[in-house]
Amino acid sequence: MSVEEVGHLSVQNFLLSLTLILVVSKLFGELFERLRLPSVLGELIAGIILGGSLLAVVPSVAGQVGYETFHLLAEIGVCILLFEIGLETDLGDLIKVGPASSLVAVVGVVAPFVLGFFSVIMFQKFGLMNADPQLLTIIAITVGATLTATSVGITARVLSDMNKLNTGEAKIILGAAVIDDILGLIILGVVSGLIEAFNAGSDGGMSLTGIITITFKAFGFLFLSIFIGNLISKRVFNFVDKLRVRGILFLFAIAFAFFYAYLANIVGLAPIVGAFAAGLVLRRINQFKIVEVNLRPVSDFFTPIFFVLIGAAVDIYVFNPFVDDNINILLIALILFIVAVIGKYISGYVVFKKGINKIVVGIGMIPRGEVGLIFAQVGLNYGVFNSKLFSAVTVMVMLTTFVAPPLLQIAFRNGNPKLNN
Amino acid sequence: MSVEEVGHLSVQNFLLSLTLILVVSKLFGELFERLRLPSVLGELIAGIILGGSLLAVVPSVAGQVGYETFHLLAEIGVCILLFEIGLETDLGDLIKVGPASSLVAVVGVVAPFVLGFFSVIMFQKFGLMNADPQLLTIIAITVGATLTATSVGITARVLSDMNKLNTGEAKIILGAAVIDDILGLIILGVVSGLIEAFNAGSDGGMSLTGIITITFKAFGFLFLSIFIGNLISKRVFNFVDKLRVRGILFLFAIAFAFFYAYLANIVGLAPIVGAFAAGLVLRRINQFKIVEVNLRPVSDFFTPIFFVLIGAAVDIYVFNPFVDDNINILLIALILFIVAVIGKYISGYVVFKKGINKIVVGIGMIPRGEVGLIFAQVGLNYGVFNSKLFSAVTVMVMLTTFVAPPLLQIAFRNGNPKLNN
Repeated sequence: MSVEEVGHLSVQNFLLSLTLILVVSKLFGELFERLRLPSVLGELIAGIILGGSLLAVVPSVAGQVGYETFHLLAEIGVCILLFEIGLETDLGDLIKVGPASSLVAVVGVVAPFVLGFFSVIMFQKFGLMNADPQLLTIIAITVGATLTATSVGITARVLSDMNKLNTGEAKIILGAAVIDDILGLIILGVVSGLIEAFNAGSDGGMSLTGIITITFKAFGFLFLSIFIGNLISKRVFNFVDKLRVRGILFLFAIAFAFFYAYLANIVGLAPIVGAFAAGLVLRRINQFKIVEVNLRPVSDFFTPIFFVLIGAAVDIYVFNPFVDDNINILLIALILFIVAVIGKYISGYVVFKKGINKIVVGIGMIPRGEVGLIFAQVGLNYGVFNSKLFSAVTVMVMLTTFVAPPLLQIAFRNGNPKLNN
Repeated sequence: MSVEEVGHLSVQNFLLSLTLILVVSKLFGELFERLRLPSVLGELIAGIILGGSLLAVVPSVAGQVGYETFHLLAEIGVCILLFEIGLETDLGDLIKVGPASSLVAVVGVVAPFVLGFFSVIMFQKFGLMNADPQLLTIIAITVGATLTATSVGITARVLSDMNKLNTGEAKIILGAAVIDDILGLIILGVVSGLIEAFNAGSDGGMSLTGIITITFKAFGFLFLSIFIGNLISKRVFNFVDKLRVRGILFLFAIAFAFFYAYLANIVGLAPIVGAFAAGLVLRRINQFKIVEVNLRPVSDFFTPIFFVLIGAAVDIYVFNPFVDDNINILLIALILFIVAVIGKYISGYVVFKKGINKIVVGIGMIPRGEVGLIFAQVGLNYGVFNSKLFSAVTVMVMLTTFVAPPLLQIAFRNGNPKLNN
């Protein structure tokens, strides 16, 4: 096959890798769904199996043959995923869920962030980690950030499987999870901006002024992009709707998301921040349904590539407890997991509404998902996390997602909300 | 944006290029549709504009930053396109159209192939071309092959725009065009096999034995893959249909197409031959509709990338008539275009049915499309065509597609079929 090899990755190997990614990720997704666990865990496991640790049919480290291509496809995948989540997020609805959700969300973001931040400082102090002191603050911030965002998708699935979507607890949890996601994206904007500034060599990035500047940038981008988008998108898409070429409307919607992702990246934020903003904007156009329906198969095709690549980058050997050196990283993963659980669990206790089971709310906020993994990926790509810390953080995200469904079932069963307040 | 650069192509530039590919290709597609010309021409023009000759925002030459990624995406695009064409091809229907279409198809493949082959020999003889004599036969075969396949898609669109799909002429043309496509793919299998054997250094590839071996391989692959596929696909997809993970059925269908493409490539044929066979097989599963509906947006997303990359590789400067050196390539393009028209036009005259307008059939067979462009791309990738010859062949394909619609309208208007026999 020498002649078809272009650059490095041959068409042949590319086709085989894609076939395996689609088949293995969906089979494991199915298996996990049958076990009443989120299918995204199956896709991560598929990635671990296909990745560098085991079969090595999916490139997992920068510089490997084909890595650039798969990395870019994964980036498209996560942009499309966040675009889809944006399309499903109704800002108006969120305002209605009101103060209860907002309080839960804010506590559920601040508590794990602070706990995660200080855990990293402690890891370094007690010798579990040996990071470059200059990098320590940024590592601690990034780890804290990975702990912040509850996975709306996973929580919603678990609640709907249990037929509890209409309970007061579910409404608070879902509202808080969505607000969480938005707060998470803003934090991601700030963190990625900080890392870029740091990598660019300006210490200014880490100063208070730097943090404030970047926070304003992140808010400014979201505000401006949504504001301008809302001003023009209806008109643009009403016009595009009159065109006749097959698929033009939804392809323009995707192009809009890519363009917003590009703009976000230009101002120094992660591309998905822009993709999410594009989703929020396009939710309000008249052709929203056409976009949503056509986007689904495209998203189904691309998103597994993202999760498989995350899994592929996990080095499972760093968790082998029979190697002395690995004890540290196992401890780090375990402590981060405990911190992740406690940080969110606390947030249930700020619900002041009567008749609400606080334990259910606290547990419902535990599962992390896409956004947490995205933070981990950003940390890895920008060189803030090494492979070990990336693996620990990814495993932490996976564990929170494993434990939440069974705990939630127990909590709902044990507590009659009326009595449990 | 230094930190996000992985390998060479940054996420930022990738997002911008994709945005431009989607928007520009669809806008030009729309423009061409409004001019009653095939929208694929618009996508090719978009490629020329975005490619190396003009804006250079899409990589067009192997080795350029990001070329590997875009090349692989284009390959996915053309595999999905051929998979889709396979899904739309009913082998049973073809048998019904019967002898008239078959004869038109065979003549319409043999005549342009022979004419194209000898044109290249003449180009060399009269100094229009200066190819390595060792390569001459394979260049002539590849050029001949690019002339063979009528574009079903383009012809069907033109006929349907004219409300003539139910005429006898239309049925013969469409039947012949589909048979053409299949013959074209077999030829492509043979040609790509020949080139691979040639490049591998064995002269055997070009011997009669070599050609016969590869022809058997191509037929053998198509026969076996369709036979085995038909045996197992119903059972497999009835099983997959019972699974619940979102999108699993159509993703398995795509994986099946990729796997067939991979197998075709393993035996030394072009991947699209396998993708097409996969389409023929999956047309017969019970879940055919689900696959077809979900595949459409994915195809809409990927296929423009293929056509834009074809256009991007066209070097428009070789057609500048004010540069002396370019006269040769202009002549080659012109002669190939004339040969392409005559070769297909002849095929109309073998229709022996009464009451059929032979001129309409002949003209209806003229437009080349996807398969011709694929041949050109294979020629370029495998180093058989240089950039000039590639550009000439691509322009020939485009010209056939430009002239057919107006000529067909005139032919239908002038000839009352009943009188014109």
